[in-house]
Amino acid sequence: MKIVIAGGGFGGLRLARLLNNRPGYDVVLIERFNYHQFQPLFYQVATAGLDASNISFPLRKVFQKSKNVRIRLATILQVDTQQKLVITDRGNISYDLLVVATGAGTNFFGNQSLAEHALSMKTTVEALQIRHRLMENFELAVTETDPAKLSRLMNIVIVGGGPTGVEVSGAIADMKKYVLPKDYPELDFSRMNIYLVEGTERVLAAMSRGSSGRALRYLNKLGVRVLTNSQVVNYNGTTLELKDQDPIPTATVIWAAGIKGHIPSGFDKTSIRRGNRLAVNEWNQVTGLQDVYAIGDVAAMQSDAFPNGHPQVAPAAIQQAENLAIILEKLRRGENHLQPFKYRDKGAMATVGRNLAVVEMPKPQLTFGGFPAWLVWMALHLMLILGVKNRLFVFLNWLYNYLTYDQSLRLIFKEFSHPTSATRRVEER
Amino acid sequence: MKIVIAGGGFGGLRLARLLNNRPGYDVVLIERFNYHQFQPLFYQVATAGLDASNISFPLRKVFQKSKNVRIRLATILQVDTQQKLVITDRGNISYDLLVVATGAGTNFFGNQSLAEHALSMKTTVEALQIRHRLMENFELAVTETDPAKLSRLMNIVIVGGGPTGVEVSGAIADMKKYVLPKDYPELDFSRMNIYLVEGTERVLAAMSRGSSGRALRYLNKLGVRVLTNSQVVNYNGTTLELKDQDPIPTATVIWAAGIKGHIPSGFDKTSIRRGNRLAVNEWNQVTGLQDVYAIGDVAAMQSDAFPNGHPQVAPAAIQQAENLAIILEKLRRGENHLQPFKYRDKGAMATVGRNLAVVEMPKPQLTFGGFPAWLVWMALHLMLILGVKNRLFVFLNWLYNYLTYDQSLRLIFKEFSHPTSATRRVEER
Repeated sequence: MKIVIAGGGFGGLRLARLLNNRPGYDVVLIERFNYHQFQPLFYQVATAGLDASNISFPLRKVFQKSKNVRIRLATILQVDTQQKLVITDRGNISYDLLVVATGAGTNFFGNQSLAEHALSMKTTVEALQIRHRLMENFELAVTETDPAKLSRLMNIVIVGGGPTGVEVSGAIADMKKYVLPKDYPELDFSRMNIYLVEGTERVLAAMSRGSSGRALRYLNKLGVRVLTNSQVVNYNGTTLELKDQDPIPTATVIWAAGIKGHIPSGFDKTSIRRGNRLAVNEWNQVTGLQDVYAIGDVAAMQSDAFPNGHPQVAPAAIQQAENLAIILEKLRRGENHLQPFKYRDKGAMATVGRNLAVVEMPKPQLTFGGFPAWLVWMALHLMLILGVKNRLFVFLNWLYNYLTYDQSLRLIFKEFSHPTSATRRVEER
Repeated sequence: MKIVIAGGGFGGLRLARLLNNRPGYDVVLIERFNYHQFQPLFYQVATAGLDASNISFPLRKVFQKSKNVRIRLATILQVDTQQKLVITDRGNISYDLLVVATGAGTNFFGNQSLAEHALSMKTTVEALQIRHRLMENFELAVTETDPAKLSRLMNIVIVGGGPTGVEVSGAIADMKKYVLPKDYPELDFSRMNIYLVEGTERVLAAMSRGSSGRALRYLNKLGVRVLTNSQVVNYNGTTLELKDQDPIPTATVIWAAGIKGHIPSGFDKTSIRRGNRLAVNEWNQVTGLQDVYAIGDVAAMQSDAFPNGHPQVAPAAIQQAENLAIILEKLRRGENHLQPFKYRDKGAMATVGRNLAVVEMPKPQLTFGGFPAWLVWMALHLMLILGVKNRLFVFLNWLYNYLTYDQSLRLIFKEFSHPTSATRRVEER
């Protein structure tokens, strides 16, 4: 049976690894990047604490000795569910069974001005772009004499008070506290404001009120200005307009306020649910299609407990991949009793800054914060990163950053040409 | 006295560090990148053995506690030697004394076709671009059915048999031997040819015939096809034409055949020497200008021993910076006896591949190769890299690569958009 897995994120990669070298399966894994991305640490790439390579694992390396898994670095243009074809920019790939594991991207909820000017952080490359923007704005600030422009360059707004928004706000606040004033002695950092804008009444709204309040205290302690019940209206690249509140002058808006599923073209509108997710049954089979499954962020398995589908987090994607691997094996053997997916809540956590985090565990039910939570957060993320080498390098970077109070990767790797080489290139003496 | 140093390479950075916190000097260091680049290891970034960050050191970090050194991240547009102004894309900077340490870039010797289609490797970003190209071509090759196109995608040509050309050829040959066939089991690597094209009669022409012959043997052993006395005529992106030899079908030409000084606009043509270098006297003072000095690759101090100026290598730049620091101090004190620059030859070395290198030392005169030379090469480069952390990470990467026979950083970090996010961005449900 030829199985095509679209996407090498947590769900797609787990499924491909479970099917790796299993007789009876030919697997093609399609991914637009040539590496698996460890999304939970994007914010540390963005804030110069980790290298992009530390959280990226070459997909071909995972399957180097595989007899049945092939990688295709390609962008999916369309799925033809009639012909059973995935149409990509690098040719068509036929399937007996398709697993859509394409994840989710940034959701600007229809606001074109934000889509154009705000920064999102849903890929490693986007995280690097945020890092570059942060660094470049301070470089520009050094020679800026107009106070209004200076405010724009130094102010930073993060929209969205979920874990990503909280984590990136806290990391930038740590940079402001420990690194930036040393790097830019010419700048007055009392002018730099970090805003976290949240639409609901509290940050980390998916966690308990206790954790939420704790995170808020940590953020306040770090000097982050948290604006709750705040609606973003418009952003033109220089001023962020909020509903019923003063506008904020800023050249940097990081958008972490929403995601939506990356559904390839070709699916019937009736199978698309809220948040652009594919409706699936309890075996992750896409509604109305016999040979197409969807797992992870892009799948919406609706139930009484989860009317909008499961939380769009790594454990849900991984668990669905694991259940689907069992289902596929049973189908291959012609068995009928297929076990429905059952989500095991692993709890939630978010780190706010140096020594500061919040953790909620379901079994045993346990909520805690501060330094112990921060240690648990780090240990867990180290365990989850793919590859011994990445794990070692992340650990060493963290150790270095912790001991030196220094996010050391303040590097702008951007393409641009030297004027003399551009203009003089061919008029050689 | 306000000293402007243009360029944060080996020469400019050394001079800035020597003047750091010395009373009587206000120093502005202008650099287009926000980091110092360790050029000798660009080829390992290009061949996925090292991370770009491993060989890059944030300039602001070097001068965090400095009382008198300021960094300006800027591109120099022109030097006005009359008004004593450096005109940059981020404003004008006046000087009492200017030190031009802008280094050198790629020299295509007037061949427009090569300038357009060949890859150069004179910046960290260019090294990353080579890495991306190498990886992407193999990804394209996987689905390529046309044999002619397949040859183009798999063949790689390096032009220039100096240390850079030899090193990058050897590193790619190591990849072909140890990594690529495992990553791309679908490809037939007997189709992949690595050519090293050299214009003179031997590789490493600046070294002895012994070292040159040794390097050639190593290259042959690794399967690199070395073409000496070969002139490149034209390259259209798909076929490299050579004078009196068969053309080579290839999508990848790495140009390491020549460099030329990065002289900012504004200098008199009469002061420009062969290779686009500024003529300087024995104190590194630019001909005809009282207040302008030049050091390193961009400076040509002509003498009987060095009719075209000193070798364009890091030790020459560093030694000139050191001598200039002494001269500046003497000038500040009003002393007259200024010591002329004297070049101390530190020898030459090049690594070819795993366990293979050649070393030539002048005092005691010693020439050797193989594993001992490879160890000496590594130890010396480790010592020269700026920063304890970079040194550790380079060492760990080397150790990892050596033990696992694996250049592990086969990652393509390139900007591009997901079709669903690009097209669906604003039509949100």
